[in-house]
Amino acid sequence: MSLGPLELPRQRRTYDVVCLGLNACDHICLVPGPPTRGGKLRMRRMVTTGGGQAATAACALARLGWRVAYVGVCGDDEAGRRVEPWLRAFGVEPVGLVVRPGTGSQQAFIMVEEASGERTIVWYRDEDCVLRPEDLEPELIASARVLHLDGHFLEASLAAARMAREHGLLVSLDGERVYPGSRELAALCQVVVGSRRYPRRLTGIEDPGRAVAEIAALGPRWAGYTDGERGAWLWVEGRLFHQPAFPVQAVDTTGAGDVFHAGLVHGILLGQGPEEALRTACALAALSVTALGGRGRLATRQELERFLERES
Amino acid sequence: MSLGPLELPRQRRTYDVVCLGLNACDHICLVPGPPTRGGKLRMRRMVTTGGGQAATAACALARLGWRVAYVGVCGDDEAGRRVEPWLRAFGVEPVGLVVRPGTGSQQAFIMVEEASGERTIVWYRDEDCVLRPEDLEPELIASARVLHLDGHFLEASLAAARMAREHGLLVSLDGERVYPGSRELAALCQVVVGSRRYPRRLTGIEDPGRAVAEIAALGPRWAGYTDGERGAWLWVEGRLFHQPAFPVQAVDTTGAGDVFHAGLVHGILLGQGPEEALRTACALAALSVTALGGRGRLATRQELERFLERES
Repeated sequence: MSLGPLELPRQRRTYDVVCLGLNACDHICLVPGPPTRGGKLRMRRMVTTGGGQAATAACALARLGWRVAYVGVCGDDEAGRRVEPWLRAFGVEPVGLVVRPGTGSQQAFIMVEEASGERTIVWYRDEDCVLRPEDLEPELIASARVLHLDGHFLEASLAAARMAREHGLLVSLDGERVYPGSRELAALCQVVVGSRRYPRRLTGIEDPGRAVAEIAALGPRWAGYTDGERGAWLWVEGRLFHQPAFPVQAVDTTGAGDVFHAGLVHGILLGQGPEEALRTACALAALSVTALGGRGRLATRQELERFLERES
Repeated sequence: MSLGPLELPRQRRTYDVVCLGLNACDHICLVPGPPTRGGKLRMRRMVTTGGGQAATAACALARLGWRVAYVGVCGDDEAGRRVEPWLRAFGVEPVGLVVRPGTGSQQAFIMVEEASGERTIVWYRDEDCVLRPEDLEPELIASARVLHLDGHFLEASLAAARMAREHGLLVSLDGERVYPGSRELAALCQVVVGSRRYPRRLTGIEDPGRAVAEIAALGPRWAGYTDGERGAWLWVEGRLFHQPAFPVQAVDTTGAGDVFHAGLVHGILLGQGPEEALRTACALAALSVTALGGRGRLATRQELERFLERES
């Protein structure tokens, strides 16, 4: 039995997807080896580019041709001033981007080792650079078919997920950290896929396969996790699907998870069932790791289709 | 016998000092502990500010009230666009700043551990972001009383030092790395003070006291080295002077060496002999380490004088 697609609002809306969550200014530092404490290491290359889970997923979806709005927050510093143009460069409309004066935007220094791809990350975000429920515009949420969340800014995410369910949107969650309320948020989503450690963090169950079944029992139709080179898993109606990662020459895995989620939402919007959508998501993520930075190589719909044909 | 001051051009010139060498965009990342390979570490604070040996020395000298010109190079990237305003903020005239289109400016990510102050540095500069002899304006060099070099861009530094000697300038060198031609450069300077490892790198002599005597034999009137918390040494006419570091609550030692050199040049411009100038230099450096970043706490002349009075 092949499982069917998820239900989406049928009528046309202003946006296909609203992505809500983190954005960041990522400094990708390609280094010849691991940085040693007290040492001075010269980089091979440096790329400063947009990052953050929800913002990068938004860029990947817009690149695939969908109408995408972004809701998030940044400071009024140098890094914050780059958020909007970086989103617009991919066609994302940053209509829900709140600028919080006097706060420092999220920034990350991502040291990527040339040979192994191992990543050491040092990051910053001002404590007050947070999206709050009162920042949300209900009309904006209601104007899309899918709400994609990255699980940060929990109170605002909960409020947005409730608005979305009221208006019949499909709600998708990229799970990473777990905060008080994260279970409640997962229960409001039809699709919950986390990083490898997320299912255990959320449920306390060690085995990730059993943990995602437990997550599905909270409400989500699709529940899964991603595990880098080992691919991704999706639990749907009592079955655990696995998609191995596509073999590619990886340069930098920054943002691979964010792009995976964009691929999953892309599959859902195309009406794909879980197996096909999982394959689509893994393919889009595989293409993204062939360049430095989370947005260094976002595939168009045609590039994605060609890649999937070659790999079939 | 108290040793006297160094000779300077007597007539008034457009600038007191021309500083030639590196500038950088420094991202100072205050971290709770050492970054671990493969890990994600949240910073406590982040400051993005101007750095680079010659550029920071220029800012420190301008802050002390001297008329300072800067000669260096940057790219036309985001980091490069910040170099000039950052210099002007301290009153430095970036009249010799060359913008090299299409190249990446120098940037450094400096992870400073909160408790120990230990620094782990990852840095970048485009191979082509280099100052060349043909970039120099001889009239600019001739319009100052002191030329201060940081020993990078060796060919351009050699050319500038020769122009300076022709026009009677005093030439001061902050020695760090050693390149082919570094000995020749040291021989052209009246003042050569390096980091702890510089005397050995330049001369091959293990003992730093003997190594600076060897450097002085090349030509310099004053030859010395700095050694962080252990203070600084200066070899002058057969005698080795030592100045212990002033006890201060150090927050970040980034730029302390650059500021030390500004203090030494300040002393020379005031007509101080070696002992007094060495003390002035150590005091200015001590004040600078009490804030994040090389330019976070550059003392005015009054602040420096008050500090020296308190410490005497």
